[in-house]
Amino acid sequence: MIRVTIIGSGNVAQHLINAFDEAFDIELVQVLVRDKSSAINIVESDKLIDNYSHLKDTDVIIISVSDNAIAEVSSKIPKLNALVVHTSGSVAMSVNHKNKKGVFYPLQTFSKSKSLKFSTIPILIETENKNDFQLLEQVANAISINVQKANSEQRKALHVAAVFVCNFVNHLYQIGNEICDENNLSFDILKPLIDETANKVMELSPREAQTGPAKRKDTETINAHLEFLKDENLKEIYKVLTKSIIDDGKKL
Amino acid sequence: MIRVTIIGSGNVAQHLINAFDEAFDIELVQVLVRDKSSAINIVESDKLIDNYSHLKDTDVIIISVSDNAIAEVSSKIPKLNALVVHTSGSVAMSVNHKNKKGVFYPLQTFSKSKSLKFSTIPILIETENKNDFQLLEQVANAISINVQKANSEQRKALHVAAVFVCNFVNHLYQIGNEICDENNLSFDILKPLIDETANKVMELSPREAQTGPAKRKDTETINAHLEFLKDENLKEIYKVLTKSIIDDGKKL
Repeated sequence: MIRVTIIGSGNVAQHLINAFDEAFDIELVQVLVRDKSSAINIVESDKLIDNYSHLKDTDVIIISVSDNAIAEVSSKIPKLNALVVHTSGSVAMSVNHKNKKGVFYPLQTFSKSKSLKFSTIPILIETENKNDFQLLEQVANAISINVQKANSEQRKALHVAAVFVCNFVNHLYQIGNEICDENNLSFDILKPLIDETANKVMELSPREAQTGPAKRKDTETINAHLEFLKDENLKEIYKVLTKSIIDDGKKL
Repeated sequence: MIRVTIIGSGNVAQHLINAFDEAFDIELVQVLVRDKSSAINIVESDKLIDNYSHLKDTDVIIISVSDNAIAEVSSKIPKLNALVVHTSGSVAMSVNHKNKKGVFYPLQTFSKSKSLKFSTIPILIETENKNDFQLLEQVANAISINVQKANSEQRKALHVAAVFVCNFVNHLYQIGNEICDENNLSFDILKPLIDETANKVMELSPREAQTGPAKRKDTETINAHLEFLKDENLKEIYKVLTKSIIDDGKKL
């Protein structure tokens, strides 16, 4: 049994708590939060603490708080025999001073109101030394079949890539939703297209999968679309992405 | 039995031919193409023609060619008793002169090398008169459970929305792929995230589903990402979409 302690109660922390609760070979020792009253439902009350001096002996502490709070939380953890890791895509491993350091980055978009299967989520791990790596790998393997080693530079690259393929993609979904709303159309009409667009790149490379007016350099349709869009912000997004697709076509 | 004739041999035409081939209540009469030699595999040879004067009696002719060829193809079809429709999202219904007119727009991204289930694809239909509408509705219902009426303005709106949620989204996938390649990471690492990002908006609205540095107004991470991106084009896309997400947050 590997003993795991979690610090935090946000989206990622809650999904991790649920995943470790169901995992074999893992004992979830404690969950440390800033405010116990706002976290009573996330774990059994006897495991919930709000004071660093109440931390019990454990093997791995996972800091799952917002990026800009990681340094402060790290500094509050007393010197222990545990490996201390954080879950951030963009914060350096070195922020965890004093204790043995590592990173445990689950590459996924987490919302409290949306359940998901943890087992296929890539977990990117990194530690300062080899023994710690094996320990962290066991912890990650307990909740996912997709555990990979990534150094800090690769992790940063993945975080940037994730912003493009997740946050920016989701924003484009939102724009599609708004265009539907403005024209008395249900956003549901776009869902099979959204689904298939994601589905396609599971088989084809995105470049092979591309279709549409920019790919075809169909300037007539592109101009008609720009005329249709009244919002300057949407026009700008349309222009920048269309130009990027057309420029990419020139590289081939 | 409703008799259907298809003009064209592109991505959409081929998927339509396959769907009608398998549909009950539809007889695929002929497929008219520009060049028979390049279309020998898409339908039985006795149904394949390349001359408008060989068109047999039929109920519905579906023109599935590139947008800028629709007018020319329409003008070549002799005066017939058939309803003539096209499959374009952005071309007006009126382009089909001489014969009874309509539009049969399947809202999906079609690539020849990627098979897909036609039955859930939204088909947006429009005709000049009511009798024709019922006929076209029957044809659409034969291959999809998701048939909807949309006028030309709504169809144009959907086509613009589709460019955002499909072509532009796919281009962001491509950028993610390139960032992975440049950092010796497999694009496969991003696939569960791509899948979940699409999956989330089947349940939550895109605005509810949003996560990430722009949503959190985390300027430190945003600046670190801009510094990481060396390519001016990628920086520009990052800035424009980040600004749009931050501005959207201000509206709430």
